[in-house]
Amino acid sequence: MSVTAARGFVAAGTACGVKADGTPDLALIATADHRPVPAAATFTTNRFAAAPVELCRRHLAATGGRATAIICNSGNANAGTGDRGRSDAAATARAVGAAVGRPAEEVLVCSTGLIGIPLPVERITGAVHTLVGALSPRGSEDAARAILTTDTRTKQVVVPGDGFVVGGIAKGAAMLAPHMATMLAFLTTDADVDPAGLRRALVPAVEESFNVLTVDGAMSTNDTVIVMASGLGRRPPEGELAEALGEACRSLMLQMAHDAEGHTVVVHVRVTGAAHPDEARHAARRVAECQLIKCSWYGDDPYWGRILAEVGASGVAFDVARSTVAYGPHVVARGGVAAPCDHDALAAYMARPEIDLIIDLGVGEAAGGVVTVDLTHEYVTENMGTS
Amino acid sequence: MSVTAARGFVAAGTACGVKADGTPDLALIATADHRPVPAAATFTTNRFAAAPVELCRRHLAATGGRATAIICNSGNANAGTGDRGRSDAAATARAVGAAVGRPAEEVLVCSTGLIGIPLPVERITGAVHTLVGALSPRGSEDAARAILTTDTRTKQVVVPGDGFVVGGIAKGAAMLAPHMATMLAFLTTDADVDPAGLRRALVPAVEESFNVLTVDGAMSTNDTVIVMASGLGRRPPEGELAEALGEACRSLMLQMAHDAEGHTVVVHVRVTGAAHPDEARHAARRVAECQLIKCSWYGDDPYWGRILAEVGASGVAFDVARSTVAYGPHVVARGGVAAPCDHDALAAYMARPEIDLIIDLGVGEAAGGVVTVDLTHEYVTENMGTS
Repeated sequence: MSVTAARGFVAAGTACGVKADGTPDLALIATADHRPVPAAATFTTNRFAAAPVELCRRHLAATGGRATAIICNSGNANAGTGDRGRSDAAATARAVGAAVGRPAEEVLVCSTGLIGIPLPVERITGAVHTLVGALSPRGSEDAARAILTTDTRTKQVVVPGDGFVVGGIAKGAAMLAPHMATMLAFLTTDADVDPAGLRRALVPAVEESFNVLTVDGAMSTNDTVIVMASGLGRRPPEGELAEALGEACRSLMLQMAHDAEGHTVVVHVRVTGAAHPDEARHAARRVAECQLIKCSWYGDDPYWGRILAEVGASGVAFDVARSTVAYGPHVVARGGVAAPCDHDALAAYMARPEIDLIIDLGVGEAAGGVVTVDLTHEYVTENMGTS
Repeated sequence: MSVTAARGFVAAGTACGVKADGTPDLALIATADHRPVPAAATFTTNRFAAAPVELCRRHLAATGGRATAIICNSGNANAGTGDRGRSDAAATARAVGAAVGRPAEEVLVCSTGLIGIPLPVERITGAVHTLVGALSPRGSEDAARAILTTDTRTKQVVVPGDGFVVGGIAKGAAMLAPHMATMLAFLTTDADVDPAGLRRALVPAVEESFNVLTVDGAMSTNDTVIVMASGLGRRPPEGELAEALGEACRSLMLQMAHDAEGHTVVVHVRVTGAAHPDEARHAARRVAECQLIKCSWYGDDPYWGRILAEVGASGVAFDVARSTVAYGPHVVARGGVAAPCDHDALAAYMARPEIDLIIDLGVGEAAGGVVTVDLTHEYVTENMGTS
């Protein structure tokens, strides 16, 4: 059920011809009664943001945080397309608005796929009427499939709350194929919450989930997370809603990490003993984005010397003499020198599909982390392709 | 002649057994008369600096910027070796000092190679006496060879000045093999300059050469650049000396880039039209260190969408509508959209071993750049190896 698990939402997906191979490429999520409900979103902070991102920001501002529908195409990111891109995004919103009988401002538009190629917008607008007719509480699977690009499987989640539900679908940012962009997540809930409260709940949920995933340090032109709230369920305390949203986002993020193209391992890099949580997160990100370390995970190599060198280069407070580096329960370095460890047990641990790397900086009590994957031959192959 | 091209310097290199395969691994550079001369150095800013880096800093402070000899072993970085590492570095300096009849403080020690493995210091100290006996004005080639690790060829340079000469040898930072660390460069000159003047000349020379080379964003535990000045030649104006030093450093840096393991192309990333030189350099570095873009160069793909996305994510002032992206003379994007270009000519240009990528931010007059290489299958293979 995922994005239609919460009461009051319907969805549909179809193939409209944006993707040349005829696979599904157009998804629609809407309120069942085609009336606007509170909506909130977070977007890429990239200054080269795609046209649909600009449109969503503008529409949410115009409606004071309300929306009736989200339309999303895959196969073309409508990024690097200039004025024509802006006009195409607006035409898409108008078509959906007309089909559901609501103003275009209540429609949010997302795109993901190739960058720098004009959107074949008439294929999208031509499919809207049929797509609206197909909207159904059973349409979540079709919608989840239609937003995928190089993903190998759909990402869906349902988190039952007390008197409300959070559900959602996503497509992966991980291991972008050539010119592919974008992490997208669409969440719905039947919790009763106003736009401001929904936004306050969404921000920390995204911060602790999608924002801790770093596959290759690249930030997309199209990254978007949207949540809509029908209000048909209970009015939970804001913390309760934020927690359920956070759980849903974290599940979708881990599904993305595990579907990262060309990876062999998902690594939770956790930094402890830091002077401040920001320093912990910064050091973890530095380690997670180091090409040399990412290659070493591919070879199941603990490589603690390079890890300490990256921490040392990150600028955070760090006491080598009191530091430790561990993979799960296996401490591989202590005080800046090799620690005796059971190499067979370590090798068995590192061969798992999901591992923890814990680095203690030895200076404080703060902690923070990120989730990442290794760097492999297949990643290079996937990303060296020509235009 | 390289490091012995300037009057007053001798060098030697040998195989002392630090490297298991018996190839040269110990180099010595000294003043011909075994008297101290002005010396200056710049080091890694990594907080996990190796023992020899700590020693060099301490010795230069103790002597007020003078040195008689530089000894450098390859095969073992003496990093992540704790107190024993510090003691081994000190023992090496003492052995050289005794052999040349000078205090240990006048000896600078460098190491490069495996991290986290105790240095077989007795092999080094046992070879010092013979090595001092072999010192010769013709020893530069042997010294240049003995400092290499995964490099495939020596890096040497001579820059003739007006009444003085700058020469030097280096080993590459580029494409580090597993656990290998370090960019090292040793320069000599017969210019007549005091320690403070030598330091003032060295800092900008390093800033505009080694510090613009970024292969994979990794900073070593052992990076060191040292220059010694015999004073047997002319006393040039400081700007003249800085210029010659800069030219020598830039040549060594480009030799490193071209010897980067597993690369197929050297890329000069130049950012123009920036609001400030720091922003230009920052944006260039961000592009140069983006895994996705590095893979695209491997496939000779211009990939301007991702390039603009990286610039957009870098936080620098940037006007997409006025931006351009060009490879050499071939403009591939203008105003954030694809520019018409001759694809065959572009492909021929991108297939060259050294190319220019010029990104104009469209907001100001400042410029800056970095030098980097592509990310290849061979890079992954080189760096996935196990301990």
